[in-house]
Amino acid sequence: MEIIGERINGMFKDIKEAIKNLDKKPVQEWAVKQTENGATWLDVNTGASAENPIEAMKWLVNTIQKVVDTPLSLDSTNYDVIEEGLKLCKRPALINSCHADRYKIERVFPMAVKYNAKIIGLTMSEKSGIPKNADSRIAIAMELVAAADEFGLPLEDLYIDPLVLPVNVGQDHAIEVMETIRQVKFLSDPAPKTVVGLSNVSQGCAKENRKLINRTMLVMLMASGLDAAIADANDDELMRAAATARILMNKEIYCDSYADLFMSKKY
Amino acid sequence: MEIIGERINGMFKDIKEAIKNLDKKPVQEWAVKQTENGATWLDVNTGASAENPIEAMKWLVNTIQKVVDTPLSLDSTNYDVIEEGLKLCKRPALINSCHADRYKIERVFPMAVKYNAKIIGLTMSEKSGIPKNADSRIAIAMELVAAADEFGLPLEDLYIDPLVLPVNVGQDHAIEVMETIRQVKFLSDPAPKTVVGLSNVSQGCAKENRKLINRTMLVMLMASGLDAAIADANDDELMRAAATARILMNKEIYCDSYADLFMSKKY
Repeated sequence: MEIIGERINGMFKDIKEAIKNLDKKPVQEWAVKQTENGATWLDVNTGASAENPIEAMKWLVNTIQKVVDTPLSLDSTNYDVIEEGLKLCKRPALINSCHADRYKIERVFPMAVKYNAKIIGLTMSEKSGIPKNADSRIAIAMELVAAADEFGLPLEDLYIDPLVLPVNVGQDHAIEVMETIRQVKFLSDPAPKTVVGLSNVSQGCAKENRKLINRTMLVMLMASGLDAAIADANDDELMRAAATARILMNKEIYCDSYADLFMSKKY
Repeated sequence: MEIIGERINGMFKDIKEAIKNLDKKPVQEWAVKQTENGATWLDVNTGASAENPIEAMKWLVNTIQKVVDTPLSLDSTNYDVIEEGLKLCKRPALINSCHADRYKIERVFPMAVKYNAKIIGLTMSEKSGIPKNADSRIAIAMELVAAADEFGLPLEDLYIDPLVLPVNVGQDHAIEVMETIRQVKFLSDPAPKTVVGLSNVSQGCAKENRKLINRTMLVMLMASGLDAAIADANDDELMRAAATARILMNKEIYCDSYADLFMSKKY
Protein backbone atom coordinates (compact mmCIF):
# COMPACT_ATOMS: atom_id res chain seq x y z
CA MET A 1 0.00 0.00 0.00
CA GLU A 2 1.46 3.33 -1.05
CA ILE A 3 0.51 6.27 1.16
CA ILE A 4 0.98 9.65 -0.49
CA GLY A 5 1.34 12.11 2.40
CA GLU A 6 -1.02 15.01 1.78
CA ARG A 7 0.33 17.56 4.22
CA ILE A 8 2.71 19.72 2.14
CA ASN A 9 -0.05 21.72 0.52
CA GLY A 10 -0.53 25.48 0.42
CA MET A 11 -4.15 25.05 1.43
CA PHE A 12 -2.80 24.40 4.96
CA LYS A 13 -2.05 27.69 6.71
CA ASP A 14 1.44 26.78 7.94
CA ILE A 15 2.58 25.71 4.46
CA LYS A 16 0.98 28.76 2.86
CA GLU A 17 2.89 31.03 5.25
CA ALA A 18 6.09 29.03 4.76
CA ILE A 19 5.90 29.49 0.97
CA LYS A 20 5.23 33.20 1.37
CA ASN A 21 8.16 33.76 3.75
CA LEU A 22 10.50 31.14 2.22
CA ASP A 23 10.57 29.54 5.67
CA LYS A 24 11.97 26.04 5.20
CA LYS A 25 11.25 24.76 8.68
CA PRO A 26 7.53 23.77 8.46
CA VAL A 27 8.03 22.20 5.04
CA GLN A 28 11.02 20.15 6.12
CA GLU A 29 9.37 19.15 9.38
CA TRP A 30 6.36 17.76 7.53
CA ALA A 31 8.64 16.05 4.99
CA VAL A 32 10.42 14.21 7.79
CA LYS A 33 7.32 13.55 9.93
CA GLN A 34 5.35 12.05 7.06
CA THR A 35 8.29 9.97 5.86
CA GLU A 36 8.97 8.65 9.36
CA ASN A 37 5.34 7.62 9.77
CA GLY A 38 5.26 5.49 6.64
CA ALA A 39 4.51 7.83 3.69
CA THR A 40 5.88 6.28 0.51
CA TRP A 41 5.35 9.52 -1.46
CA LEU A 42 5.05 13.17 -0.46
CA ASP A 43 2.44 15.24 -2.25
CA VAL A 44 3.64 18.76 -3.06
CA ASN A 45 1.06 21.43 -3.80
CA THR A 46 1.77 25.17 -3.73
CA GLY A 47 -1.86 26.01 -3.06
CA ALA A 48 -3.92 28.36 -5.20
CA SER A 49 -2.70 31.48 -3.45
CA ALA A 50 1.02 31.22 -4.27
CA GLU A 51 2.03 34.41 -6.09
CA ASN A 52 4.53 32.69 -8.36
CA PRO A 53 3.54 29.01 -8.42
CA ILE A 54 6.49 27.91 -10.58
CA GLU A 55 9.02 29.44 -8.19
CA ALA A 56 7.04 28.09 -5.22
CA MET A 57 7.07 24.55 -6.63
CA LYS A 58 10.81 24.70 -7.35
CA TRP A 59 11.49 26.01 -3.85
CA LEU A 60 9.32 23.29 -2.26
CA VAL A 61 10.95 20.47 -4.24
CA ASN A 62 14.46 21.66 -3.37
CA THR A 63 13.56 22.32 0.25
CA ILE A 64 12.07 18.85 0.72
CA GLN A 65 14.89 17.03 -1.06
CA LYS A 66 17.42 18.58 1.31
CA VAL A 67 16.02 16.49 4.19
CA VAL A 68 14.42 13.34 2.73
CA ASP A 69 14.74 11.22 -0.40
CA THR A 70 11.08 10.18 -0.39
CA PRO A 71 9.75 10.42 -3.97
CA LEU A 72 7.43 13.34 -4.69
CA SER A 73 3.94 13.65 -6.07
CA LEU A 74 3.74 17.02 -7.87
CA ASP A 75 0.23 18.34 -7.47
CA SER A 76 -1.00 21.21 -9.60
CA THR A 77 -3.59 22.02 -12.27
CA ASN A 78 -0.87 24.02 -14.05
CA TYR A 79 1.31 21.63 -16.05
CA ASP A 80 4.12 24.17 -16.45
CA VAL A 81 4.39 24.22 -12.66
CA ILE A 82 4.61 20.43 -12.65
CA GLU A 83 7.21 20.37 -15.42
CA GLU A 84 9.52 22.79 -13.62
CA GLY A 85 9.20 20.60 -10.52
CA LEU A 86 9.91 17.42 -12.49
CA LYS A 87 13.19 18.89 -13.75
CA LEU A 88 14.41 19.07 -10.16
CA CYS A 89 13.15 15.73 -8.81
CA LYS A 90 15.99 13.38 -7.94
CA ARG A 91 13.75 10.31 -8.04
CA PRO A 92 10.98 9.41 -10.50
CA ALA A 93 7.97 11.49 -9.50
CA LEU A 94 4.21 11.17 -9.67
CA ILE A 95 2.19 13.72 -11.65
CA ASN A 96 -0.98 14.61 -9.74
CA SER A 97 -3.06 14.66 -11.92
CA CYS A 98 -4.37 14.40 -15.48
CA HIS A 99 -8.04 14.55 -16.48
CA ALA A 100 -9.15 12.48 -19.46
CA ASP A 101 -9.47 15.46 -21.82
CA ARG A 102 -7.51 14.98 -25.03
CA TYR A 103 -5.61 18.28 -24.82
CA LYS A 104 -4.53 17.47 -21.24
CA ILE A 105 -3.50 13.92 -22.15
CA GLU A 106 -1.37 15.30 -25.01
CA ARG A 107 0.39 17.65 -22.62
CA VAL A 108 0.85 15.31 -19.64
CA PHE A 109 1.59 11.82 -21.01
CA PRO A 110 4.61 12.81 -23.17
CA MET A 111 5.92 14.88 -20.23
CA ALA A 112 5.67 11.84 -17.93
CA VAL A 113 7.56 9.67 -20.40
CA LYS A 114 10.23 12.37 -20.87
CA TYR A 115 10.90 12.68 -17.12
CA ASN A 116 10.31 9.00 -16.29
CA ALA A 117 7.36 10.04 -14.12
CA LYS A 118 4.13 8.26 -13.22
CA ILE A 119 0.64 9.75 -13.67
CA ILE A 120 -2.52 9.92 -11.57
CA GLY A 121 -5.28 9.79 -14.20
CA LEU A 122 -8.70 11.01 -13.10
CA THR A 123 -11.81 9.25 -14.41
CA MET A 124 -13.32 12.58 -15.37
CA SER A 125 -13.25 15.00 -18.27
CA GLU A 126 -14.80 18.36 -19.06
CA LYS A 127 -17.36 16.52 -21.19
CA SER A 128 -18.18 13.79 -18.65
CA GLY A 129 -18.39 15.93 -15.51
CA ILE A 130 -18.52 13.90 -12.30
CA PRO A 131 -19.06 10.28 -13.34
CA LYS A 132 -22.31 8.79 -12.02
CA ASN A 133 -21.35 5.19 -11.46
CA ALA A 134 -18.67 2.53 -11.91
CA ASP A 135 -19.47 2.00 -15.59
CA SER A 136 -18.89 5.62 -16.53
CA ARG A 137 -15.69 5.69 -14.45
CA ILE A 138 -14.41 2.57 -16.20
CA ALA A 139 -15.24 3.96 -19.65
CA ILE A 140 -13.03 6.97 -18.89
CA ALA A 141 -10.32 4.80 -17.31
CA MET A 142 -10.17 2.91 -20.63
CA GLU A 143 -9.36 6.18 -22.42
CA LEU A 144 -6.47 6.74 -20.02
CA VAL A 145 -5.22 3.20 -20.55
CA ALA A 146 -5.35 3.76 -24.32
CA ALA A 147 -3.39 7.01 -23.85
CA ALA A 148 -0.70 5.18 -21.88
CA ASP A 149 -0.41 2.71 -24.73
CA GLU A 150 -0.32 5.48 -27.34
CA PHE A 151 2.36 7.56 -25.64
CA GLY A 152 4.46 4.68 -24.31
CA LEU A 153 3.78 5.06 -20.59
CA PRO A 154 4.15 1.67 -18.82
CA LEU A 155 0.71 0.62 -17.55
CA GLU A 156 2.05 0.15 -14.01
CA ASP A 157 2.98 3.84 -14.05
CA LEU A 158 -0.64 4.89 -14.54
CA TYR A 159 -2.61 5.33 -11.32
CA ILE A 160 -6.35 5.48 -12.00
CA ASP A 161 -8.19 7.76 -9.55
CA PRO A 162 -11.95 7.00 -9.60
CA LEU A 163 -12.87 10.21 -7.72
CA VAL A 164 -14.01 9.84 -4.14
CA LEU A 165 -16.84 12.23 -3.21
CA PRO A 166 -17.86 13.42 0.27
CA VAL A 167 -20.16 10.81 1.79
CA ASN A 168 -22.54 13.44 3.13
CA VAL A 169 -23.35 14.79 -0.34
CA GLY A 170 -22.59 11.91 -2.72
CA GLN A 171 -23.39 8.93 -0.57
CA ASP A 172 -24.13 6.63 -3.50
CA HIS A 173 -20.59 7.06 -4.88
CA ALA A 174 -18.52 5.06 -2.36
CA ILE A 175 -19.84 1.69 -3.60
CA GLU A 176 -19.27 2.78 -7.20
CA VAL A 177 -15.68 3.71 -6.37
CA MET A 178 -15.13 0.28 -4.76
CA GLU A 179 -16.56 -1.42 -7.84
CA THR A 180 -14.41 0.72 -10.17
CA ILE A 181 -11.25 -0.24 -8.28
CA ARG A 182 -12.15 -3.91 -8.69
CA GLN A 183 -12.83 -3.51 -12.43
CA VAL A 184 -9.71 -1.46 -13.23
CA LYS A 185 -7.64 -4.58 -12.66
CA PHE A 186 -9.31 -6.21 -15.67
CA LEU A 187 -8.61 -3.33 -18.09
CA SER A 188 -5.16 -4.45 -19.19
CA ASP A 189 -2.30 -6.80 -18.41
CA PRO A 190 -0.33 -5.54 -16.59
CA ALA A 191 -3.15 -3.55 -15.00
CA PRO A 192 -2.94 0.12 -14.06
CA LYS A 193 -2.65 0.92 -10.38
CA THR A 194 -5.45 2.59 -8.45
CA VAL A 195 -5.34 5.61 -6.14
CA VAL A 196 -7.82 7.81 -4.31
CA GLY A 197 -7.81 11.20 -2.64
CA LEU A 198 -9.01 9.67 0.61
CA SER A 199 -9.76 12.62 2.89
CA ASN A 200 -12.34 13.90 0.43
CA VAL A 201 -14.74 11.16 1.56
CA SER A 202 -15.27 12.92 4.90
CA GLN A 203 -15.13 16.51 3.64
CA GLY A 204 -17.84 18.51 5.41
CA CYS A 205 -18.66 15.72 7.89
CA ALA A 206 -18.59 16.37 11.66
CA LYS A 207 -14.98 16.71 12.80
CA GLU A 208 -15.31 13.81 15.29
CA ASN A 209 -16.36 11.48 12.45
CA ARG A 210 -13.74 12.39 9.86
CA LYS A 211 -10.85 10.11 10.80
CA LEU A 212 -13.20 7.18 11.42
CA ILE A 213 -14.79 7.64 8.00
CA ASN A 214 -11.40 8.03 6.31
CA ARG A 215 -9.92 4.85 7.74
CA THR A 216 -13.08 2.81 7.22
CA MET A 217 -13.21 3.90 3.58
CA LEU A 218 -9.51 3.09 3.14
CA VAL A 219 -9.99 -0.45 4.45
CA MET A 220 -13.06 -1.00 2.24
CA LEU A 221 -11.13 0.22 -0.81
CA MET A 222 -8.17 -1.99 0.08
CA ALA A 223 -10.55 -4.96 0.20
CA SER A 224 -11.41 -4.03 -3.39
CA GLY A 225 -7.72 -3.97 -4.35
CA LEU A 226 -6.67 -0.33 -3.90
CA ASP A 227 -2.93 0.29 -4.42
CA ALA A 228 -2.40 3.85 -3.16
CA ALA A 229 -4.06 6.73 -1.32
CA ILE A 230 -3.35 10.40 -0.90
CA ALA A 231 -3.97 10.61 2.82
CA ASP A 232 -2.90 11.88 6.22
CA ALA A 233 0.25 9.80 6.83
CA ASN A 234 0.42 11.14 10.40
CA ASP A 235 -2.95 9.70 11.37
CA ASP A 236 -1.63 6.69 13.29
CA GLU A 237 -5.00 4.95 13.41
CA LEU A 238 -5.26 5.24 9.64
CA MET A 239 -1.77 3.84 9.12
CA ARG A 240 -2.46 0.95 11.49
CA ALA A 241 -5.73 0.18 9.71
CA ALA A 242 -3.86 0.12 6.37
CA ALA A 243 -1.20 -2.18 7.83
CA THR A 244 -3.91 -4.54 9.12
CA ALA A 245 -5.77 -4.60 5.82
CA ARG A 246 -2.49 -5.58 4.11
CA ILE A 247 -2.08 -8.47 6.53
CA LEU A 248 -5.65 -9.64 5.94
CA MET A 249 -5.16 -9.35 2.16
CA ASN A 250 -2.14 -11.64 2.65
CA LYS A 251 0.31 -9.08 1.24
CA GLU A 252 2.71 -9.48 4.19
CA ILE A 253 3.24 -12.30 6.64
CA TYR A 254 1.65 -11.73 10.05
CA CYS A 255 3.88 -11.00 13.00
CA ASP A 256 2.83 -9.22 16.18
CA SER A 257 4.70 -6.03 15.25
CA TYR A 258 3.29 -5.81 11.70
CA ALA A 259 1.88 -2.29 12.17
CA ASP A 260 5.18 -0.83 13.34
CA LEU A 261 6.97 -2.55 10.48
CA PHE A 262 4.51 -1.08 7.97
CA MET A 263 4.96 2.43 9.34
CA SER A 264 8.74 2.07 9.30
CA LYS A 265 8.42 0.87 5.67
CA LYS A 266 10.13 -2.39 6.51
CA TYR A 267 6.97 -4.13 5.26
CA MET B 1 -25.72 -5.19 9.79
CA GLU B 2 -26.75 -7.72 12.41
CA ILE B 3 -24.38 -8.06 15.36
CA ILE B 4 -24.76 -11.31 17.30
CA GLY B 5 -23.35 -10.54 20.75
CA GLU B 6 -20.89 -13.31 21.63
CA ARG B 7 -20.52 -12.73 25.36
CA ILE B 8 -23.03 -15.15 26.96
CA ASN B 9 -20.84 -18.19 26.51
CA GLY B 10 -19.66 -20.69 29.10
CA MET B 11 -16.13 -20.41 27.79
CA PHE B 12 -15.98 -17.06 29.61
CA LYS B 13 -15.21 -17.60 33.26
CA ASP B 14 -17.96 -15.35 34.67
CA ILE B 15 -20.65 -17.11 32.62
CA LYS B 16 -19.26 -20.55 33.46
CA GLU B 17 -19.48 -19.70 37.16
CA ALA B 18 -22.93 -18.19 36.76
CA ILE B 19 -24.24 -21.38 35.13
CA LYS B 20 -22.69 -23.51 37.86
CA ASN B 21 -24.17 -21.43 40.70
CA LEU B 22 -27.41 -20.48 38.92
CA ASP B 23 -26.40 -16.86 39.47
CA LYS B 24 -28.60 -14.77 37.16
CA LYS B 25 -26.76 -11.49 37.62
CA PRO B 26 -23.77 -11.83 35.20
CA VAL B 27 -25.99 -13.35 32.51
CA GLN B 28 -28.62 -10.64 32.76
CA GLU B 29 -26.01 -7.89 32.94
CA TRP B 30 -24.42 -9.07 29.69
CA ALA B 31 -27.85 -9.48 28.10
CA VAL B 32 -28.65 -5.84 28.85
CA LYS B 33 -25.18 -4.45 28.10
CA GLN B 34 -24.94 -6.13 24.71
CA THR B 35 -28.48 -5.14 23.77
CA GLU B 36 -27.91 -1.53 24.80
CA ASN B 37 -24.75 -1.33 22.70
CA GLY B 38 -26.44 -2.43 19.49
CA ALA B 39 -26.50 -6.25 19.48
CA THR B 40 -29.39 -7.44 17.30
CA TRP B 41 -29.06 -11.04 18.54
CA LEU B 42 -27.59 -12.60 21.68
CA ASP B 43 -25.59 -15.78 21.27
CA VAL B 44 -26.25 -18.32 24.03
CA ASN B 45 -23.69 -21.07 24.61
CA THR B 46 -23.51 -23.16 27.78
CA GLY B 47 -19.82 -23.96 27.21
CA ALA B 48 -18.39 -27.45 27.08
CA SER B 49 -18.07 -27.79 30.84
CA ALA B 50 -21.76 -27.47 31.77
CA GLU B 51 -22.76 -30.57 33.73
CA ASN B 52 -26.26 -30.72 32.32
CA PRO B 53 -26.20 -28.72 29.08
CA ILE B 54 -29.95 -29.06 28.42
CA GLU B 55 -30.84 -27.65 31.83
CA ALA B 56 -28.14 -24.97 31.45
CA MET B 57 -29.53 -23.86 28.07
CA LYS B 58 -33.09 -23.72 29.41
CA TRP B 59 -31.94 -21.71 32.42
CA LEU B 60 -29.93 -19.29 30.25
CA VAL B 61 -32.81 -18.72 27.81
CA ASN B 62 -35.29 -18.07 30.61
CA THR B 63 -32.84 -15.90 32.56
CA ILE B 64 -32.07 -13.72 29.53
CA GLN B 65 -35.69 -13.36 28.44
CA LYS B 66 -36.61 -11.97 31.85
CA VAL B 67 -34.62 -8.79 31.12
CA VAL B 68 -34.50 -8.29 27.33
CA ASP B 69 -36.54 -9.29 24.29
CA THR B 70 -33.51 -9.43 21.97
CA PRO B 71 -33.79 -12.58 19.82
CA LEU B 72 -31.44 -15.42 20.71
CA SER B 73 -28.85 -17.40 18.79
CA LEU B 74 -28.70 -20.87 20.35
CA ASP B 75 -25.16 -22.11 20.09
CA SER B 76 -24.36 -25.77 20.68
CA THR B 77 -23.01 -28.82 18.88
CA ASN B 78 -25.72 -30.83 20.64
CA TYR B 79 -28.99 -30.43 18.76
CA ASP B 80 -31.10 -31.70 21.67
CA VAL B 81 -29.74 -28.79 23.70
CA ILE B 82 -30.73 -26.40 20.92
CA GLU B 83 -34.19 -27.93 20.58
CA GLU B 84 -34.96 -27.56 24.29
CA GLY B 85 -33.85 -23.92 24.03
CA LEU B 86 -35.99 -23.33 20.94
CA LYS B 87 -39.09 -24.49 22.81
CA LEU B 88 -38.62 -21.61 25.25
CA CYS B 89 -37.68 -18.80 22.86
CA LYS B 90 -40.31 -16.09 22.71
CA ARG B 91 -39.04 -14.74 19.39
CA PRO B 92 -37.81 -16.65 16.31
CA ALA B 93 -34.29 -17.81 17.12
CA LEU B 94 -31.12 -18.54 15.21
CA ILE B 95 -29.62 -22.04 15.31
CA ASN B 96 -25.83 -21.79 15.63
CA SER B 97 -24.89 -23.92 13.71
CA CYS B 98 -25.29 -26.75 11.18
CA HIS B 99 -22.44 -28.36 9.25
CA ALA B 100 -23.13 -29.59 5.73
CA ASP B 101 -23.22 -33.28 6.68
CA ARG B 102 -26.39 -35.00 5.54
CA TYR B 103 -27.27 -36.46 8.95
CA LYS B 104 -26.89 -33.04 10.56
CA ILE B 105 -28.95 -31.33 7.86
CA GLU B 106 -31.73 -33.91 8.36
CA ARG B 107 -31.77 -33.14 12.07
CA VAL B 108 -31.44 -29.34 11.97
CA PHE B 109 -33.41 -28.08 8.96
CA PRO B 110 -36.76 -29.70 9.90
CA MET B 111 -36.24 -28.47 13.48
CA ALA B 112 -35.71 -24.90 12.21
CA VAL B 113 -38.89 -25.07 10.14
CA LYS B 114 -40.87 -26.50 13.08
CA TYR B 115 -39.81 -23.71 15.46
CA ASN B 116 -39.74 -20.94 12.83
CA ALA B 117 -36.00 -20.54 13.46
CA LYS B 118 -33.16 -19.46 11.20
CA ILE B 119 -29.95 -21.46 10.64
CA ILE B 120 -26.26 -20.62 10.50
CA GLY B 121 -24.95 -23.10 7.93
CA LEU B 122 -21.20 -23.76 7.97
CA THR B 123 -19.38 -24.34 4.68
CA MET B 124 -17.74 -27.44 6.09
CA SER B 125 -18.50 -31.10 6.53
CA GLU B 126 -16.74 -34.10 8.03
CA LYS B 127 -15.79 -35.12 4.49
CA SER B 128 -14.55 -31.69 3.36
CA GLY B 129 -12.60 -30.66 6.45
CA ILE B 130 -11.57 -27.00 6.47
CA PRO B 131 -12.29 -25.69 2.95
CA LYS B 132 -9.19 -24.47 1.13
CA ASN B 133 -10.58 -21.61 -0.94
CA ALA B 134 -13.70 -19.73 -2.04
CA ASP B 135 -14.66 -22.36 -4.62
CA SER B 136 -14.78 -25.19 -2.10
CA ARG B 137 -16.72 -22.97 0.33
CA ILE B 138 -19.25 -22.10 -2.38
CA ALA B 139 -19.67 -25.75 -3.39
CA ILE B 140 -20.68 -26.57 0.21
CA ALA B 141 -22.86 -23.46 0.48
CA MET B 142 -24.79 -24.79 -2.53
CA GLU B 143 -25.55 -27.99 -0.61
CA LEU B 144 -26.96 -25.90 2.22
CA VAL B 145 -29.06 -23.86 -0.21
CA ALA B 146 -30.39 -27.10 -1.71
CA ALA B 147 -31.22 -28.32 1.80
CA ALA B 148 -33.17 -25.13 2.53
CA ASP B 149 -35.15 -25.71 -0.64
CA GLU B 150 -35.73 -29.38 0.19
CA PHE B 151 -36.93 -28.81 3.75
CA GLY B 152 -38.84 -25.59 3.09
CA LEU B 153 -36.62 -23.14 4.96
CA PRO B 154 -36.93 -19.65 3.42
CA LEU B 155 -33.58 -18.76 1.81
CA GLU B 156 -33.37 -15.50 3.79
CA ASP B 157 -33.44 -17.59 6.96
CA LEU B 158 -30.23 -19.38 5.98
CA TYR B 159 -27.03 -17.63 7.11
CA ILE B 160 -23.99 -19.02 5.31
CA ASP B 161 -20.85 -18.96 7.49
CA PRO B 162 -17.73 -19.33 5.32
CA LEU B 163 -15.45 -20.07 8.31
CA VAL B 164 -13.03 -17.36 9.34
CA LEU B 165 -9.62 -18.72 10.44
CA PRO B 166 -7.01 -17.04 12.64
CA VAL B 167 -4.91 -14.75 10.46
CA ASN B 168 -1.67 -15.86 12.11
CA VAL B 169 -2.14 -19.49 11.07
CA GLY B 170 -4.43 -19.37 8.01
CA GLN B 171 -3.44 -16.06 6.49
CA ASP B 172 -4.49 -17.00 2.98
CA HIS B 173 -8.10 -17.59 4.09
CA ALA B 174 -9.29 -14.01 4.70
CA ILE B 175 -9.38 -13.14 0.99
CA GLU B 176 -11.15 -16.43 0.26
CA VAL B 177 -13.78 -15.60 2.87
CA MET B 178 -14.34 -12.16 1.30
CA GLU B 179 -14.71 -13.75 -2.12
CA THR B 180 -17.12 -16.38 -0.76
CA ILE B 181 -19.32 -13.70 0.78
CA ARG B 182 -19.49 -11.93 -2.58
CA GLN B 183 -20.38 -15.14 -4.43
CA VAL B 184 -23.04 -16.36 -1.97
CA LYS B 185 -25.27 -13.55 -3.19
CA PHE B 186 -25.41 -15.21 -6.63
CA LEU B 187 -26.42 -18.67 -5.36
CA SER B 188 -30.16 -18.10 -5.31
CA ASP B 189 -32.85 -15.43 -5.50
CA PRO B 190 -33.57 -14.43 -2.81
CA ALA B 191 -29.99 -15.05 -1.70
CA PRO B 192 -29.01 -16.55 1.65
CA LYS B 193 -27.56 -14.19 4.22
CA THR B 194 -23.91 -14.35 5.27
CA VAL B 195 -22.42 -14.43 8.75
CA VAL B 196 -18.98 -14.91 10.30
CA GLY B 197 -17.58 -15.73 13.71
CA LEU B 198 -15.49 -12.58 13.67
CA SER B 199 -13.24 -12.84 16.73
CA ASN B 200 -11.73 -16.05 15.38
CA VAL B 201 -9.71 -14.00 12.88
CA SER B 202 -7.47 -12.67 15.65
CA GLN B 203 -7.36 -15.80 17.82
CA GLY B 204 -3.80 -16.25 19.08
CA CYS B 205 -2.62 -12.83 17.85
CA ALA B 206 -0.99 -10.36 20.25
CA LYS B 207 -3.61 -8.92 22.59
CA GLU B 208 -2.90 -5.32 21.48
CA ASN B 209 -3.67 -6.27 17.87
CA ARG B 210 -6.85 -8.25 18.37
CA LYS B 211 -9.49 -5.51 18.32
CA LEU B 212 -7.79 -3.73 15.42
CA ILE B 213 -7.71 -6.95 13.39
CA ASN B 214 -11.33 -7.76 14.27
CA ARG B 215 -12.72 -4.39 13.21
CA THR B 216 -10.57 -4.20 10.07
CA MET B 217 -11.75 -7.67 9.01
CA LEU B 218 -15.38 -6.72 9.74
CA VAL B 219 -15.15 -3.64 7.51
CA MET B 220 -13.49 -5.63 4.70
CA LEU B 221 -16.20 -8.28 4.92
CA MET B 222 -18.92 -5.62 4.92
CA ALA B 223 -17.39 -4.20 1.73
CA SER B 224 -17.94 -7.69 0.29
CA GLY B 225 -21.59 -7.66 1.40
CA LEU B 226 -21.56 -9.36 4.82
CA ASP B 227 -24.94 -9.35 6.60
CA ALA B 228 -24.13 -10.46 10.14
CA ALA B 229 -21.28 -11.19 12.55
CA ILE B 230 -20.94 -12.98 15.84
CA ALA B 231 -18.80 -10.42 17.60
CA ASP B 232 -18.06 -8.40 20.71
CA ALA B 233 -21.01 -6.00 20.76
CA ASN B 234 -19.40 -4.08 23.62
CA ASP B 235 -16.31 -3.16 21.61
CA ASP B 236 -17.31 0.44 20.84
CA GLU B 237 -14.67 0.89 18.15
CA LEU B 238 -15.94 -2.21 16.39
CA MET B 239 -19.54 -1.00 16.54
CA ARG B 240 -18.57 2.44 15.23
CA ALA B 241 -16.58 0.86 12.39
CA ALA B 242 -19.64 -1.23 11.47
CA ALA B 243 -21.87 1.85 11.56
CA THR B 244 -19.43 3.71 9.29
CA ALA B 245 -19.18 0.86 6.80
CA ARG B 246 -22.98 0.85 6.60
CA ILE B 247 -22.96 4.56 5.77
CA LEU B 248 -20.30 4.07 3.10
CA MET B 249 -22.26 1.13 1.63
CA ASN B 250 -25.19 3.57 1.40
CA LYS B 251 -27.41 1.45 3.66
CA GLU B 252 -28.37 4.43 5.84
CA ILE B 253 -28.42 8.14 5.16
CA TYR B 254 -25.47 10.02 6.62
CA CYS B 255 -26.06 12.27 9.59
CA ASP B 256 -23.42 13.37 12.09
CA SER B 257 -24.78 11.08 14.82
CA TYR B 258 -24.97 7.97 12.62
CA ALA B 259 -22.78 5.85 14.94
CA ASP B 260 -24.91 6.55 18.01
CA LEU B 261 -28.05 5.81 16.02
CA PHE B 262 -26.61 2.48 14.85
CA MET B 263 -25.68 1.45 18.38
CA SER B 264 -29.12 2.44 19.69
CA LYS B 265 -30.61 0.36 16.83
CA LYS B 266 -32.45 3.39 15.46
CA TYR B 267 -30.51 2.87 12.23
